[in-house]
Amino acid sequence: MSKLDCVVKEIADEMRQRPDRGAVADYIAELAHIDPKAFGLAVIDADGELACGGDCDTSFSIQSISKVFTLTLALGKVGDRLWQRVGREPSGSPFNSIVQLERERGIPRNPFINAGAIAVTDVILSGHQPREALGEILRFMQFLADDPSITIDSAVAASEDRTGFRNRALANYMKSFGVLENPVDFILGVYFHHCAIAMSCRQLALAGRFLAHQGRNPSTGLSVVQPERARRINAIMLTCGHYDGSGEFAYRVGLPGKSGVGGGILAIAPGKASVAVWSPGLDASGNSHLGRIALEALTNRMGWSIFGG
Amino acid sequence: MSKLDCVVKEIADEMRQRPDRGAVADYIAELAHIDPKAFGLAVIDADGELACGGDCDTSFSIQSISKVFTLTLALGKVGDRLWQRVGREPSGSPFNSIVQLERERGIPRNPFINAGAIAVTDVILSGHQPREALGEILRFMQFLADDPSITIDSAVAASEDRTGFRNRALANYMKSFGVLENPVDFILGVYFHHCAIAMSCRQLALAGRFLAHQGRNPSTGLSVVQPERARRINAIMLTCGHYDGSGEFAYRVGLPGKSGVGGGILAIAPGKASVAVWSPGLDASGNSHLGRIALEALTNRMGWSIFGG
Amino acid sequence: MSKLDCVVKEIADEMRQRPDRGAVADYIAELAHIDPKAFGLAVIDADGELACGGDCDTSFSIQSISKVFTLTLALGKVGDRLWQRVGREPSGSPFNSIVQLERERGIPRNPFINAGAIAVTDVILSGHQPREALGEILRFMQFLADDPSITIDSAVAASEDRTGFRNRALANYMKSFGVLENPVDFILGVYFHHCAIAMSCRQLALAGRFLAHQGRNPSTGLSVVQPERARRINAIMLTCGHYDGSGEFAYRVGLPGKSGVGGGILAIAPGKASVAVWSPGLDASGNSHLGRIALEALTNRMGWSIFGG
Amino acid sequence: MSKLDCVVKEIADEMRQRPDRGAVADYIAELAHIDPKAFGLAVIDADGELACGGDCDTSFSIQSISKVFTLTLALGKVGDRLWQRVGREPSGSPFNSIVQLERERGIPRNPFINAGAIAVTDVILSGHQPREALGEILRFMQFLADDPSITIDSAVAASEDRTGFRNRALANYMKSFGVLENPVDFILGVYFHHCAIAMSCRQLALAGRFLAHQGRNPSTGLSVVQPERARRINAIMLTCGHYDGSGEFAYRVGLPGKSGVGGGILAIAPGKASVAVWSPGLDASGNSHLGRIALEALTNRMGWSIFGG
Repeated sequence: MSKLDCVVKEIADEMRQRPDRGAVADYIAELAHIDPKAFGLAVIDADGELACGGDCDTSFSIQSISKVFTLTLALGKVGDRLWQRVGREPSGSPFNSIVQLERERGIPRNPFINAGAIAVTDVILSGHQPREALGEILRFMQFLADDPSITIDSAVAASEDRTGFRNRALANYMKSFGVLENPVDFILGVYFHHCAIAMSCRQLALAGRFLAHQGRNPSTGLSVVQPERARRINAIMLTCGHYDGSGEFAYRVGLPGKSGVGGGILAIAPGKASVAVWSPGLDASGNSHLGRIALEALTNRMGWSIFGG
Repeated sequence: MSKLDCVVKEIADEMRQRPDRGAVADYIAELAHIDPKAFGLAVIDADGELACGGDCDTSFSIQSISKVFTLTLALGKVGDRLWQRVGREPSGSPFNSIVQLERERGIPRNPFINAGAIAVTDVILSGHQPREALGEILRFMQFLADDPSITIDSAVAASEDRTGFRNRALANYMKSFGVLENPVDFILGVYFHHCAIAMSCRQLALAGRFLAHQGRNPSTGLSVVQPERARRINAIMLTCGHYDGSGEFAYRVGLPGKSGVGGGILAIAPGKASVAVWSPGLDASGNSHLGRIALEALTNRMGWSIFGG
Repeated sequence: MSKLDCVVKEIADEMRQRPDRGAVADYIAELAHIDPKAFGLAVIDADGELACGGDCDTSFSIQSISKVFTLTLALGKVGDRLWQRVGREPSGSPFNSIVQLERERGIPRNPFINAGAIAVTDVILSGHQPREALGEILRFMQFLADDPSITIDSAVAASEDRTGFRNRALANYMKSFGVLENPVDFILGVYFHHCAIAMSCRQLALAGRFLAHQGRNPSTGLSVVQPERARRINAIMLTCGHYDGSGEFAYRVGLPGKSGVGGGILAIAPGKASVAVWSPGLDASGNSHLGRIALEALTNRMGWSIFGG
Repeated sequence: MSKLDCVVKEIADEMRQRPDRGAVADYIAELAHIDPKAFGLAVIDADGELACGGDCDTSFSIQSISKVFTLTLALGKVGDRLWQRVGREPSGSPFNSIVQLERERGIPRNPFINAGAIAVTDVILSGHQPREALGEILRFMQFLADDPSITIDSAVAASEDRTGFRNRALANYMKSFGVLENPVDFILGVYFHHCAIAMSCRQLALAGRFLAHQGRNPSTGLSVVQPERARRINAIMLTCGHYDGSGEFAYRVGLPGKSGVGGGILAIAPGKASVAVWSPGLDASGNSHLGRIALEALTNRMGWSIFGG
């Protein structure tokens, strides 16, 4: 049993016993039913060794983690022109804040807050029907994870569509500044659905590998993006991946990471590993409570912090 | 001649020829006279090899770079209790913004915006006379750089003291929330003086070595801070070290760094090197224009980005 | 010819000759075609004497002036419970600002900014179909002006419906806080249509009479609201009727007034007269440029300022 | 006994019996000792009839009410050029907010929030020594009230000087934008002292008479300002006189008024009366709780609302 295997099992055990689990998001009705005790962890290293702990094969709603992959697709489609539509600075605000948009005339601060991810979805949608755009995103996830069984949980998407008033506000607000090209309903349709992609920790860790290895899948050798682009996506994950908890995540975990309100986090140890963790209880900033703690333990024990071994 | 040496000389040459140099800060009268064509670069690697280019022995006002070292001192003095007085999230705002303080009842977002650094200075000052506190800071810099000739440019400090109305506003504002313990004039006296420390790129790169090497000077073996603390200071530099240009710096350079309005930047390549660059012209966010470009070239050519080689 | 008649004619003449006319609103496509030279003024005093100048029988889109009448209806329906849904403080912000809503959890500052008027429309709509609610509002206007020919310009309403992204953002945003009860599309349907009511200055001055005379029409003796309610509506018009130009309007004109982006203003001289003015060119705050100047002349020459004769 | 006399006595009796009194300001140490049961009311009508109730001859610290008189003096000194230094729009913010200053580059919204009053004091100070400027303000109050015994409570001024960190922040902040001409310490010295002027309700009602009567004292016939200026000062009092409670005051009381944190309010019934009320307990917006209630009763019973009899 490798060191990585031991550490992953150890952490999964420790997390199972902790009484503090955060609060499961209740604003998306379908997510409120998830067992707060669930915990999964999957790590896949440069050699392709996969270490799994806990419920690492249970699917969960990846939610905002999808923003990493839509950002990758949009950059592939329009390149650096994307940055005319969205910034890349931390916002210092919660994930769904609208204040900053008023001051900056509809340009979202970064692609990982909701407004920014909606602008990214608009870019992917351009020239397509919503169904096509969504198909492209889903196929990309299936390709990255090498798993055609990955699907969208349409009940979650429908639940968001019924109650996602704040995202609807953000999108209409950007539309009023001319920042969005497509009809708001089309954009949100795609957005709610790509957030509702369901994946397990194992699948997610596989999907993130290209970010850890200079844009390539080291097992297949297939290139997804250029090395520089992989580095830059990691940089944005580090500074912006956890909303107004991004500084805290960098401080404690020391890895680029992106959280989702479903309780998942994808974290990248450049050159070393791709990591996915899931525990549905959230902290005050909307990030997985145990997920962050597990990653802090992992990075400490493996010496993987990008800020010094 | 080592690869590092070649790269450093190459970059210094390239920078000398660029016509775009940013604008020298004019709000501190003493700094307005600096030659905008100055450029210096010093890199010291894990083995202690020092590579120098351009005006790497010319002293400049380190200004906000001093905040890295006062943070280190304050953490040494009160440990994690410091975080009751100042946060560690990016602010998404310019260096001297006061808006966030009103909403968050006088607690600055992080120790690298002015308000946060003033709170850090207050911590260092407690129990001391201003002169003693300042002596402690200066001796710490001399110790780290192993150079007792480092001094404070009192003309710069006096210039700030006369015209630093916004810092005076920030300090009084925090004082009104009870966040500061000492008299505002004492705190600002120390603050303006530690910002006025004058150092060369060579001295600054030496002073920053402990951050690149798990808290220790690898040449002397002397420990300055625990490894975890060094990592965490690097994390804060990455997310907050360049004000509202922090995301951009992470995206382009991919190293923890801290800029000063005097045109200097200290950057840390964990496990690899400590880097100091200086060019007095600033970009719109108040960070050295050529300094950032030089660091981007350096990190690309040396493969030092923390986000993937 | 009475003094009032002379003053009104005089002002209409003066306004015709002024070169400065402001800029016609172009964000509602249908309004962009209006002749910028149009000017109308109608004043009806306590005795029912009507003085008219310029294009006082030309219909224009009353837009936000309708908010005075929907506020009156909503207060009639739910009384002071309305103030649980909307405040009555000046906002210090433009008519369509969303920032304040985030800080105050979806409760608009007052019923005369767009967000507040949308909340008022929601109150009127409750228990009704949109068509019924709209019918009620239109019949109220016809009753007040004693003129069943008043109609809604459905081209203007349709134009707003197509392009009113910011109002859609405001409504969805409030909905996300649970401040609105009805479906957003229903509320906005009614809102866009009541803003598109077309009236002449003559009709509007008649409709506003109850506010000048303790809640009653002094000619018919019919009571619309209690005296205290009329006073209070006037107070809100004074402090909030011109968005972030409310202070300026109070300072220069000295009458409660409500402007619309169609270029109309309804102003009330309590105990003395109801005044409607129309000129489609707007100032930077979105209020009729010549309309305000004409009212300043009127109030000065008639000695009608509520702040001293 | 006149109706006015009866109403005033009646209100003073009612107020004496109310259990709800608000909370005495404690941030100025000297004010914290005031008896929360104190209540005074003085009304002087157009004929010079004075009606007094309760503690109408007890001196209290007029605090921000002094801003009405410094505004009058500054307008006398520089006329409408004053409006290049301070706006006249309601701020929608608490009295000591600093946020709006950042967005509007140091120009305060109106002369009745602290920042605006500090800018007004700077105007009065220009060309004078602090002592002279203060003498001018004090003599103006003595002249208006026809009472040379009015003085400044220097203990209150000293208390503010020691603890007025937020005002010091506001002043330094404006100074950083170049909005203030004189040294911050000089301006604040004058500001803290004119806020510490001590007056009784009787004296204050006398001092405010010119605002009720077209700029003149109707008893002596002496003109203080032109009629238009009196109207305009009243307009600013109406829209801005009670900070973020200005809309509420207009809605309930219907008179121009200016409150002070000492519990006093000066209210003007144009053409009818000058009113001063004092009760030290404050509401959440920092305005006298019983003072506002007493004025609401007075204006209702006398039919003095400017928004309709």
